[in-house]
Order: sequence, then C-alpha cells, then structure tokens
Amino acid sequence: MFSDAKLIDSKNNAFFKRLVKISQNKEKSLCLLEGIHLCQEFLAKADGAQLKAAIFQASAISKAVNEANSELMQLYQCLNSSPTILADQLFKQLCDVPSPQGVIFLIEPAQRPLDELLVDKTMVLVDRVQDPGNLGTIIRTVAAAGIKQLVLSSGTVKAWSPKVLRSAQGAHFAITIFTEVDLKVLVNKLKLPIYATALSDEARSLYALDLARECAWLLGNEGQGVSRELLAQATAEVFIPQAEAVESLNVAVACGIILFEQRRQRLAQVS
Amino acid sequence: MFSDAKLIDSKNNAFFKRLVKISQNKEKSLCLLEGIHLCQEFLAKADGAQLKAAIFQASAISKAVNEANSELMQLYQCLNSSPTILADQLFKQLCDVPSPQGVIFLIEPAQRPLDELLVDKTMVLVDRVQDPGNLGTIIRTVAAAGIKQLVLSSGTVKAWSPKVLRSAQGAHFAITIFTEVDLKVLVNKLKLPIYATALSDEARSLYALDLARECAWLLGNEGQGVSRELLAQATAEVFIPQAEAVESLNVAVACGIILFEQRRQRLAQVS
Repeated sequence: MFSDAKLIDSKNNAFFKRLVKISQNKEKSLCLLEGIHLCQEFLAKADGAQLKAAIFQASAISKAVNEANSELMQLYQCLNSSPTILADQLFKQLCDVPSPQGVIFLIEPAQRPLDELLVDKTMVLVDRVQDPGNLGTIIRTVAAAGIKQLVLSSGTVKAWSPKVLRSAQGAHFAITIFTEVDLKVLVNKLKLPIYATALSDEARSLYALDLARECAWLLGNEGQGVSRELLAQATAEVFIPQAEAVESLNVAVACGIILFEQRRQRLAQVS
Repeated sequence: MFSDAKLIDSKNNAFFKRLVKISQNKEKSLCLLEGIHLCQEFLAKADGAQLKAAIFQASAISKAVNEANSELMQLYQCLNSSPTILADQLFKQLCDVPSPQGVIFLIEPAQRPLDELLVDKTMVLVDRVQDPGNLGTIIRTVAAAGIKQLVLSSGTVKAWSPKVLRSAQGAHFAITIFTEVDLKVLVNKLKLPIYATALSDEARSLYALDLARECAWLLGNEGQGVSRELLAQATAEVFIPQAEAVESLNVAVACGIILFEQRRQRLAQVS
C-alpha cells in the first residue's frame, strides 16, 4: 500500500528543511494545512489553490491502515500524487497543535488579483486586524453569512498561517480572499455604500440602516479601530448599540452581529 | 515615594514562589490581573472581589515616576496598601504576554453562591466551552449585550485565568459569573424559557422567535455543541440561519448574533 510513498526520517533532508521554513511563515506563497478537517475542506472546495504535497505522520498512518472507516486513510487513498511519510519527531516539528491528527497538506493558495473583485457586490474590508484568531473567525463568519468577498489591508495579519487557518475551520476555501490591498485606493473604486464600524458620536445605529442593498463593511484594528483616513472615505459610520458596561465588542463578534443583521433583513425581504 | 514598597529580587522569596504557582493556575481561589486596563477596570467596577496585592515591575515603575500623566503611576498612587515591586526578570516570569505593561494585581474573585442567581432574569448558560479566548469573548459579549448573569458548567475552562481575562477586557467585573455549576440540575429551577443553540432539523430559526421576554440562552462546547441531556431539557432548540458554505459559527460569534438579536427586538419595543 505504501509502495509509492516517500519516507523521510532525517532532519537534514532538504524537503523537510523547506517544510520547517514554511511552517515558520518564511515562504510567502506556500502554507501548511494541518489536520483532517482542513485537508478535507481543501479537497472538497479549494478553487484555484494547488496541492503541492500530502504529508502523513508515520505512526498515524500505520495505525489508520488497520481501522475501518479511517478518515485519515480515506484522505490518503484519494490522492493522485505520491504522499510523503514523515517520522513522528519530524512531523511534530511542523505542527502548531500539541496533538496533531497525522496529516498536513502543503498548498499554494490562489493569489487573486484585485481586478477580480466585484466592485458592486457585498464585501468585507479588514483594516489591520492583528490577532490570527480574530482574522480566522472573521473569515469563518463572512462565509457563514453567505458573503463571498473579503479584502485584507496591508498590515493585516497573514491570512494563510496555521492559527488563522485553524480558527477559520476551512472557510478560506468558501470565499475569495484578496490580501495586501491598499484600502484607501480601493474604496474610491467601489460602487457601493461603505459602512465603517466606529464608536464615534456621528455613527448611526446598525438597527436604523436599511441593509437590503449590497454594501461594503469596513472593520478595523483591535485597539485603534478603522483608520481616520478610511473613516473619512466611508459613506457612513455605524455602531452596534451596546450596553455601557464594556468599551467595545471583539472585532469578530462585531462582524457577526453586523453581517447577520444584514442577513436577517434580506431573508425577511425574500419571505 | 517608594518608601512603603516592598522590593523582591530573589526567586527564592516565598511570596514570589506563591505568585508563580498562582500564575500557573495552581491556586483555585486566586488569580492575577495583568496590565493597566484590567487593573483599572478592577478598581472601577469590581464588586465583592478582593485586592490581595498590587505588584509592579521595577523598571516600569522607575520610568513612570518621570512621566507626566502616567497611567501606571496613577494606579500606583491610588492604592491603599503597600505595593510590591518585583525585579524585571521575576516580573516577566509571571506574565502571559511578551511585552508586559508593568503591573499585576493579585485578586480573589468574588465566589457567587448559586442561590444569588435570579432564576427569572435573562442569563447565558455555557456548557463545557474549552477555549479560553472563546470564553473571554463570550464574557465580553454578554456584558456588552447588557445581560448581567453568566453561568458556567463544570468542565468549562477556568474563568479567571490570564487568557480568559485578557480576551474579556475587564468584562468580568461588569457581570456576575457563576462557576462549576451542574446545569442539568439548574435548568429545572429556572422560571424562564430555555433556548439551546443547535444545528438539528428540529431547531427553530432565531429570527422567528419573539425575544421580548426574559429567557436563558444555552451555548455548547466548540466541537460537540450542547450536550444531549441538556438539549432534551430545553424549551426549544434554536439555529442561526447561516449559509451552507461552513458547518457552524464560532461559539462566541453565535453568542453575539443571538444576544444582539434579542437586544434589537427589545430596543424596538421600547422606542
């Protein structure tokens, strides 16, 4: 069964050394997908992204051979190319979690040129969000809200890192993500109202907006919010009417409240 | 100025050794608040919690003396008891973040007995949530939604750990948190409809519910959701109408969407 697989058990192996670099985010165009669910989502949905190598943990794949309905074995068997099997110690070095599930895909995410952005369709714009968990949760939330376009500013945390991928639970493959975008230039080209989240006195209540139309939502950095220049370019500033007990909401939670209020209004219109 | 402060510069000091244990979550009834914002929130709002010691980092407090309007110095000066100053290396050992802000409060959170729970007032029940960032964000979101009661099941991650405190941004002090509760016993005593989040076919759409009345919201574990026994005890199962692109929403985002839909309905009623 493993006759076509390549076994690596030396830390001096050139391919393994390259994988270590990629796991440290040192190669911009490549990333590692860790775990069964992410790899399944990649195979089911990834559009334009390329599988460069499928990497299995030696002990996990040996064990999986003897199990009925092993998800790991199913992943192994549906590959077109020869997999790589890594000795346990080497495999663990690539992983971001304490209990890895025995599979990693090395992929090259699709790099979407900005001219593929549909400038009149609903989108979320992210201005310098720093926390990988927050960005991953935003990606998951945007996909769950049925929105297809996400645009990340320069200065936003890298979208294809292990922590972001883990938080997003496969949602990277359900939407189109544009990265390293100069939002100040982009917003001038949009044919949509642009609503920026803000806590200022000028901001309008989310619940007072008619959200049936397409629009662009602008979310900001965890500490500073949306930058002043971008706020000035927005059609309106919007706030979520919250209690005074806390200063603000987490940015991913705010994203969920906003996008699902829009979804609620749209569903009500259809029904 | 520092005449009343106690300086510790030996890692063998008994108080320092105890602080290390507390920072490792080894003393159940005590916890450390890290950073200026959390300590300010504690002083402004903490109701029933006790400040056991205020601990400053030697270099940070020396620097703060010479700064106008130093927030650190203001914290230092408003204390009633003598602060402890820790040598930099010792201070950093207690911290969960790479760039500490120079202050830690050792506190004993108020332990609320369950008979203080108002069984006919809106509350959020959390069933075995595991991720500290998720729990912290839920605490922040509950407070922002103007809800005052949060009940955590046995098996939920510890509420007063550094990661949870950091995610909650001081919201621990704006609500009442009941911990280590047997939810199966509690729900029988509630005088409220109990809505459990679920992805089952029997679940009703969030947007079809009349949420003007008080109710209890039941949120579940990240992977498994609300336990089967608890689902059976709920008044109704509720789902958030999401797109099919992803399997589910992050639990803290789901919490935000639900609580703010209730808030929207209530605000509409008032106005």
